Order: sequence, then structure tokens, then C-alpha cells
Amino acid sequence: MYSGAQISLYPMADDFVGIILGSIRALDRYRDTLRIETDDLSTLLVGPPEQLFPAMRDLFVAAARSGRHCVLSACVSRGCPGEPDDPRCAPSTDIGAEGPLDVRIVAAQEVVNAAPATGITVAAQFSHYPLSHGQYMDEIYGVIDFLKSSGVFDRPKNFCTRLAGDAGPVFATLEQAFLRFGAPPEGHVTLDVTVSANSPSRR
Amino acid sequence: MYSGAQISLYPMADDFVGIILGSIRALDRYRDTLRIETDDLSTLLVGPPEQLFPAMRDLFVAAARSGRHCVLSACVSRGCPGEPDDPRCAPSTDIGAEGPLDVRIVAAQEVVNAAPATGITVAAQFSHYPLSHGQYMDEIYGVIDFLKSSGVFDRPKNFCTRLAGDAGPVFATLEQAFLRFGAPPEGHVTLDVTVSANSPSRR
Repeated sequence: MYSGAQISLYPMADDFVGIILGSIRALDRYRDTLRIETDDLSTLLVGPPEQLFPAMRDLFVAAARSGRHCVLSACVSRGCPGEPDDPRCAPSTDIGAEGPLDVRIVAAQEVVNAAPATGITVAAQFSHYPLSHGQYMDEIYGVIDFLKSSGVFDRPKNFCTRLAGDAGPVFATLEQAFLRFGAPPEGHVTLDVTVSANSPSRR
Repeated sequence: MYSGAQISLYPMADDFVGIILGSIRALDRYRDTLRIETDDLSTLLVGPPEQLFPAMRDLFVAAARSGRHCVLSACVSRGCPGEPDDPRCAPSTDIGAEGPLDVRIVAAQEVVNAAPATGITVAAQFSHYPLSHGQYMDEIYGVIDFLKSSGVFDRPKNFCTRLAGDAGPVFATLEQAFLRFGAPPEGHVTLDVTVSANSPSRR
């Protein structure tokens, strides 16, 4: 299995380099478990699927604490058949991707309910792509049922779903959608994620 | 059929609002054919699939001419079974999504070769998701063969492919990957796209 993300942090500020360099230190605690590589377009995270969203949350919360309008954009993937197997990516626990949809929805809700608050309010939208699942729209509708009960559901949009709330439960909701839905543990799922803080625009 | 995109423009500048408002005028010429709606996270474009990339190119080129580091992030979709049929989205011509892969690759190359230059150099990366195609990895490998002959191929990355060059052929390459590959004309294809200009970072 291979799992990881291409993530980009966009501070809308003249000092975007300073904000990025300051907040990227929040990834230091993950460097033992995640491979982290940066170029001019994105930072690659490779490692266990359950580590990806905590790392993204900590990075984004650090950037948002600058008070500037910041956006995190991420392409998150597990099980892509075009990527090599990597022992680094083995989940440390059962990610919960098997079993009936209603059981997975309840388990996902419990994780979100237990997510600690960060004090940073965010808006997010994401698309969920279950690539290797024959009944992929059933899985997408299952994700939507979970989202509606997550406590951070805001509204459906074309091509994606909008979330709003504290970064803690919002990132936990994204994580649970990624881990538990769309494919069995070795199947192929990707997410296209946008998270925003401190926007001056009307919702 | 339904086709469209959720697009976001990120100018890394204190005057991000001014740059966005200035460049969004580039979309005015598309308002007759595209439905355009903005909230705090993204701008929705809905309309014929062959109109989406010219609109994104013109918006991004206008923003990049500010000289500031700017990024366009887009989730582009056609044929999503969860969206309603919309006559506005009917392609004005055959989008070329049928026929053998090698024929589609040659046709896509011809469009890219004819794309006018804009004078704006960009780097881009994107993921291609053929959601409703049983042999979806064959389609992805077909897209990769096309990209390698596009003249703007830079290198493969994990989970995506990197392009570099003038915004004209780069957006034409993204468009051809979207229109011709991944699904028959009514099938479901999405792209997760990032385009960057004026970055101070090392590639």
C-alpha cells in the first residue's frame, strides 16, 4: 500500500514565505513517521494514512494563527495502483474501511466527537473519489450521510461538500471520510481538499 | 450532462483582494455561456466542458500579470451522476472522448500544438480521476502517454503529473486530458489542478 498527500499552503500576504517557514515547523513531530519533501508547488507527505490529517491540521492551525487569510489545498491518496508498495505506509491500526456503511458511519462520528478543539475556526470543502469501488456512488452517498451527522456539515456544493467549524473536528471529519469510506483497506481512494481561515469574504 | 469547476485564485500578497477583483474581469467574456457564482472558498463555473479551461487560463494569466506569486486551484468535473442534467452544459462540438487511445492522443497533441502562447510561464500539477471507467488505470496511463508528448511535460510526481511552460499550451494540455480521456462523453471524469506563476521557490 502507498498513502500520502501533496499539500500546499497559501498565505495571502506579502510575507507568505515567512508564514510558510514558520508554520512548517509544526510538521517536525511527524518527521519520524512521514517522508516529507517540498518543491515549488507542494509538499509531499508519505506515510500511514491515519497520520496525514493530524499533520495537515497542525500545519494549517500554525499558519492560521498568523491571523492572515490562509488556505491549505491538498490531494490525499491511499492505495493508488500506480504507486509502489511502501512499508512506511502500513497503518498502525485498523483504519475501519471494512464493514457495512451504517457501522462505519457510527464509528466515524465517534472519532469526530472526540476530536479536541484547536481554537481556530475554518471553512473547508472537499471531493471524495472512490476510484476502485464498483459501487462508488453508494460510497459517496454514505460519506454524505456521515458528513451530515458530523457536527461540522455546512452545505452541499456542486462537485464537493462544504464543512465549517473548529479545525479539530473539521480535520477529523476529513480524515474519517478518507479512512473509512470509498474502498477496502487496500483500495484506491483520493480526496481533493481545501481548508480556509481568516477570509474577509462573505460565505 | 453536467460540467463545471470549483476554482480558487490565491495571490500571495497583502493586496490579494485587489488582484482577485482585477483579474476576475477576465471572466466577463464567458458570462454568456458559463454560470459563475462566488463564495468565500471558490468560484463555481458551470457550462460546456470545452469552455472551462479557456476561462481558467484567462483568469489566471490576468492574475499572474500582477507579477505576484499566484496559484489557481481547481476541481473540474464532467458527467457527475450526482448532479442534474443541465442544457447549458451541452458541448458545442464533439469533445473527442470516444475512440481508441492512440487516436485520442494524436488529436489532443494537435490541439496543444495549435494553442497560442500567452507570454506567462507557469508550473502546474494535476491528478486525473476517471471515476466511471472500468479500466480506469488504462485511461490514466493513456493520459500519461499524451502528457509525455505534449511539449509541456515536466515530470511525474506522486499522485499527480507536473507540467511547465507557457500558460497557453499548459491549459490546453489540461483541457485535452479532461475532455478526451477517462470516460465516454457522458461519463464521469474529474481533475484536481494546481497552476502556479511567479514562485520564488526552487523547482
